[in-house]
Amino acid sequence: MREETDLAALPRGPEHDADPTETPGFVEAALGAIESRDVDALRALVADLHESDLARLLEALPPADRPQLIELLGSDFDFTALTELDETVRVQILEELPTQTVVEGVRELESDDAVYILEDLDDADKQEILAHLPIPERAALQRSLDYPEESAGRRMQTEFIALPPFWTVGQTLDYVGETEGLPETFFEVFVVDPTYRLTGSVPLDRLLRTKRGVKLGEVVTPDRHVVNATDDQEDVARVFERYNLISSPVVDDAGRLVGVLTIDDIVDVIQEEADEDLKALGGVAGDEELSDSFWYIARSRFSWLLLNLIAANLASFVISLFEGELERMVALAVLMPIVASQGGNAGTQTMTVAVRALATRELRASNARRVVARELLVGLFNGVVFAVIMAVVVFARFGIADLGFVIALAMIINLLAAAFGGIMIPLTLDRLKVDPAVSSGPFVTTVTDVVGFFAFLGIASLWF
Amino acid sequence: MREETDLAALPRGPEHDADPTETPGFVEAALGAIESRDVDALRALVADLHESDLARLLEALPPADRPQLIELLGSDFDFTALTELDETVRVQILEELPTQTVVEGVRELESDDAVYILEDLDDADKQEILAHLPIPERAALQRSLDYPEESAGRRMQTEFIALPPFWTVGQTLDYVGETEGLPETFFEVFVVDPTYRLTGSVPLDRLLRTKRGVKLGEVVTPDRHVVNATDDQEDVARVFERYNLISSPVVDDAGRLVGVLTIDDIVDVIQEEADEDLKALGGVAGDEELSDSFWYIARSRFSWLLLNLIAANLASFVISLFEGELERMVALAVLMPIVASQGGNAGTQTMTVAVRALATRELRASNARRVVARELLVGLFNGVVFAVIMAVVVFARFGIADLGFVIALAMIINLLAAAFGGIMIPLTLDRLKVDPAVSSGPFVTTVTDVVGFFAFLGIASLWF
Repeated sequence: MREETDLAALPRGPEHDADPTETPGFVEAALGAIESRDVDALRALVADLHESDLARLLEALPPADRPQLIELLGSDFDFTALTELDETVRVQILEELPTQTVVEGVRELESDDAVYILEDLDDADKQEILAHLPIPERAALQRSLDYPEESAGRRMQTEFIALPPFWTVGQTLDYVGETEGLPETFFEVFVVDPTYRLTGSVPLDRLLRTKRGVKLGEVVTPDRHVVNATDDQEDVARVFERYNLISSPVVDDAGRLVGVLTIDDIVDVIQEEADEDLKALGGVAGDEELSDSFWYIARSRFSWLLLNLIAANLASFVISLFEGELERMVALAVLMPIVASQGGNAGTQTMTVAVRALATRELRASNARRVVARELLVGLFNGVVFAVIMAVVVFARFGIADLGFVIALAMIINLLAAAFGGIMIPLTLDRLKVDPAVSSGPFVTTVTDVVGFFAFLGIASLWF
Repeated sequence: MREETDLAALPRGPEHDADPTETPGFVEAALGAIESRDVDALRALVADLHESDLARLLEALPPADRPQLIELLGSDFDFTALTELDETVRVQILEELPTQTVVEGVRELESDDAVYILEDLDDADKQEILAHLPIPERAALQRSLDYPEESAGRRMQTEFIALPPFWTVGQTLDYVGETEGLPETFFEVFVVDPTYRLTGSVPLDRLLRTKRGVKLGEVVTPDRHVVNATDDQEDVARVFERYNLISSPVVDDAGRLVGVLTIDDIVDVIQEEADEDLKALGGVAGDEELSDSFWYIARSRFSWLLLNLIAANLASFVISLFEGELERMVALAVLMPIVASQGGNAGTQTMTVAVRALATRELRASNARRVVARELLVGLFNGVVFAVIMAVVVFARFGIADLGFVIALAMIINLLAAAFGGIMIPLTLDRLKVDPAVSSGPFVTTVTDVVGFFAFLGIASLWF
């Protein structure tokens, strides 16, 4: 087999850099096997792949070949791989696969992975797949899907071990050792009362260190931070981060245990949220993915740029108020973008810090005043420094001392405005329950452009 | 006790929003207890606090009171709380505490937390504390500190359970049940050969489900992704994310087991890295913290703004090449910032996507061409749309059709330049091993400013 020899002969980097899809010839070998419908070769090729690498392979294939690979592999294809794909790619694949294949694949999954795969499908497709599942599985998935999008209920796994407090550690160990069909991996057993209300959890390591005769009720600790199934995943992620949790029980409004969240799902949430904030600050939609089509991206970028165009025209209108001054002194036209640009960048710095600190809840009512004061001081300080620099530069370049004073004054004003806008705009948006990451940028730039041009040209018109 | 009644009477929000430092009166109560040196009141106040909340309380106190709180609490203060502080605050506290207090606090910590606290101290302080520790503890910490900064060796915990392959599951369970001084929490036992080389690991849940007579060697699975102690923490974080790991053994260059990394440490790394990229894109130093002083921040923001000032002066120089045109037609001065600003924003969008995709390794050699082509297409498409919009706006505003054509053409050129620069600059920096998140911004803005002004004014000078 050519492929296998190729793979074995490869120089291996550090273990964790071994991404098979980056191995020269790997994707081509898979493609060849798909096109010649050589199931054995394909199976051999993907046999050792982790689900994440299988997902990488799928993404590296031309769209038409993706469902084919899944169909050829049949039950050898681990549907967990689909949870590691970009949403666009996942939905495309699921839409092209026969319902029966999806149903069989979903049945093999842990509940949280099944929900993850189903939730992006449109309602008709979702219902069709659910209809083909056995009733208990269907009911469990439906219950998770009934929770709001991006809630803990959507992300939780509904397989867990819940036991009564009067069971002994010995009984528990025997039960875990002998029972079939327990969750694939678990880190604790939960203790519940007869109405399934959560008492707390016993981590496996504590279970192992406790004498067999002790009752669970004696070693259970109440969880300090119980997640409600309707909690937003972002809030849950914050709790996990803050309290260094590995897993957490999830309860319904009545306090009954309905699922368990583990940190690996939460890591994805943390990534997603950081990703969304970062993209939003850059004027990109949070859900934009590298695999999205040209058309989708062009439209989603357009709206932000349109907003910016309006802001730019507003700034341009401010400039037009001073046409007379510009005609008399062309140096003003040459210099005015410097003041605006410096303000824009200083404002972006402050805004970035403010948006991030709001997202991580570090910026709170209790320290907002201190941060605002500090930002204004920083703006004033840098404003003065850059004012001096530009005054010297302008004098050297144009030989007009007064022009140096004008730009210096405008620079100080605009860097103060930048600091003020950069912090107050995100704070205000946050208070109005508007995501400051998405909306602050255009406002801040408008402030610094308008103030920059107005201050510089306005002072010039008074001065000269 | 006034404080306790206050706390109990508080309306409780969702469990995880209960941040005691946000509780009105809590910080004041703690402050009062510190100042009256009322140890009992202080102890009662912080008794139920999670280490993260204790950290919040420390941050909310005036700097001078922080070490006092620790001293007053004595052995009731959990030094783990210090790992949850901003670096600035942690270092300040450690510098003010008597060496003996720090030594006793550090001794109570898990090795990874101890390293985390020690590594930021300057060498003299670090050595003084190490010198006061018992030799075995000192040696273990020193070994971790000898690994490079931000490496897996610095983040790993050196407490773990390593057993020979010929031990049975029964022996293992008994050992774990009866031995004192095992790690506080653990998720697996590791199997090593006589030279301590790692064979693999056995998760606790698998251990529980295996018959007592089975040998560890028969149930152990080799870890697919073994972390080397010298690996960079960012690479390690990527492995954890990608393969959904909860913990991973860490080996030295000879393959000997030296520690274990758990996901809760990695979550902090993921957060830090996302944070650094987000801040870098906004022109803020990655290590800037909300608690940093005015002076530190003013200096760190200054350098980025200085770079921007140079770029802005370059753009201003380009404008000055067309002074004649600007004097003849003041509308050019009014309109030129629109072209530059629109390009700057489009370039930032593309750059944001490129920088993020490079950081997550989604953008790779294998798909770079497709992404570049797509970005250029998006640039062309949006360029044409905004060209049409601006042509209409300019004609309506100035009544000069030719001016509309000029701005339209310049807009298309600049949005193409923005797309090209937005993707090629990060790709090139990445190839040159320069962090694209930190350095792309000023280059991209320079390109869009220079091209924007040059295209608009240049075309105008040819046309009119």
